[in-house]
Amino acid sequence: MKLPQAVEVTEVGPRDGFQNLQTRIQTEDKLCIIDGLAECGFKKIEVTSFVHPKASPQMDDAAEVLRAIKNKYPSRFKCTILASTLSGAQLALDLGADEIAFVISASDPHNLENTKNTVEQSLYALASLCKIKGKALVRLAIATAFSCPFIGVMPSKNVMRLLEAGMTAGADEVALADTLGTANPLQVESLLDLLIPHYGNNIVLHLHDTYGMGMANVITCLNMGITRFEASVGGLGGYQFAPGAAVNIATEDLINMLHMMNIYTGIDNDKLISTCQTVERLLKVTLPGHILRSKRTAMIK
Amino acid sequence: MKLPQAVEVTEVGPRDGFQNLQTRIQTEDKLCIIDGLAECGFKKIEVTSFVHPKASPQMDDAAEVLRAIKNKYPSRFKCTILASTLSGAQLALDLGADEIAFVISASDPHNLENTKNTVEQSLYALASLCKIKGKALVRLAIATAFSCPFIGVMPSKNVMRLLEAGMTAGADEVALADTLGTANPLQVESLLDLLIPHYGNNIVLHLHDTYGMGMANVITCLNMGITRFEASVGGLGGYQFAPGAAVNIATEDLINMLHMMNIYTGIDNDKLISTCQTVERLLKVTLPGHILRSKRTAMIK
Repeated sequence: MKLPQAVEVTEVGPRDGFQNLQTRIQTEDKLCIIDGLAECGFKKIEVTSFVHPKASPQMDDAAEVLRAIKNKYPSRFKCTILASTLSGAQLALDLGADEIAFVISASDPHNLENTKNTVEQSLYALASLCKIKGKALVRLAIATAFSCPFIGVMPSKNVMRLLEAGMTAGADEVALADTLGTANPLQVESLLDLLIPHYGNNIVLHLHDTYGMGMANVITCLNMGITRFEASVGGLGGYQFAPGAAVNIATEDLINMLHMMNIYTGIDNDKLISTCQTVERLLKVTLPGHILRSKRTAMIK
Repeated sequence: MKLPQAVEVTEVGPRDGFQNLQTRIQTEDKLCIIDGLAECGFKKIEVTSFVHPKASPQMDDAAEVLRAIKNKYPSRFKCTILASTLSGAQLALDLGADEIAFVISASDPHNLENTKNTVEQSLYALASLCKIKGKALVRLAIATAFSCPFIGVMPSKNVMRLLEAGMTAGADEVALADTLGTANPLQVESLLDLLIPHYGNNIVLHLHDTYGMGMANVITCLNMGITRFEASVGGLGGYQFAPGAAVNIATEDLINMLHMMNIYTGIDNDKLISTCQTVERLLKVTLPGHILRSKRTAMIK
């Protein structure tokens, strides 16, 4: 096995997790959780998304969240914001976002459903964004990179084409998202075989654990030289909250596996597990992460 | 990635799953579940264990279960029985067991706790068993092969030594059990690097998913040429039933990943998922497998 010495994990729970909760989360609770995550040592946290409030009412306090975070932590960690329109991204940049994850699906029908734009329209917006991004980093977040509810298994060449177009439009890097959680290690290897020779250092993986293949895909990625992943605290954002939503890999499970294999992450995993407990208390949820489940068991014992 | 064309999965739910349930399971319910599993196409099912009823009251109908199964299915699948004493194994052989999984821990303190014998005493019993096994196959099931609650991380050389002693005693093959679920892919690779040159074709892996590393370990094993695994229907046997117990890999999650990578198993996974629903209904449990969780979500939707 060929493992890297260090891996960068971006915490996306405050965006990918919160947005899937149906119960309203108070802004101060969001900020408290982000405080907890900052203490764990993350260098990047995806703190919110600037999308239409109708599409994601949970995120209608995005400006307030970003403003408060940038005010409290001007440089402790990079604030990533998800956006799918130029106007949303521009607003985030104006408020000091360090990175924009600009989401485009690998298939037109899913992009239309998710963003109300064709892939071509989204690419045009991405190009416009890249002209005004200034010092901020723009990451093309490719949704449905492995499968799509409308077209099924995603052909690797569709992803390659979108990636090329995005980089030509000026994106700095790419995140490949297994939106439905159907990616298997062989498919991951096959797609990365195609992309790594061209974009190796610029690829981030956003894997889900819907069918239990998330960590198997992580190992496959590590073996191929991928060193950047996104994950969600406690596995927040998933089945028990928003029916049908995919399950994020739990950040603390990922960090634990990396640390057990002597891979440096810079994250204090004990603090992260404490933060999971804060999340459960504030949001009144039971998180699905494996370590948390085993801890609950030990407590019952 | 170097994947095998076919993998053999042994279903161990009726032993490893049932034994961890605190509520009494009726013998006819056990037989009904084993019927369902037989329909799925398994070539080997671990149907019960012949251990002292005080140690595992749930298994005090072992003789009745084995007799009924061998009567109904004289040759449809191989009946594996777990035992930790010569007398238990002998009784199982007398009733027609096809395979004995004879469990010995890689460390003395755990073996004493689990079987009331030292490792040396267990090896002596194994040697006696191998003399009377006749046509039956004897598998040395090494518990705590990766870590032990008493000594911590298990040195690979301890496992190697026990395996050598077991094979010298006459065992046909070995199962390596990640009893506590702490094995990580690097440790799995390291242990298999040591064992495969000597015992490659005779190694079965029994992995747990307690900390979310089960499927990552499966991929590592496949890459190293391992083609035999044990798993439990729905992930039965674990945290929500018996506090502190480790979580088995869910058989249907494993089969799904293998099939998605075009690896033949001979199992009808749709039937297996239906059988999971039978298990949930009869045992009044909610199984933790990933596919089952995602199905429940879809139903809520």
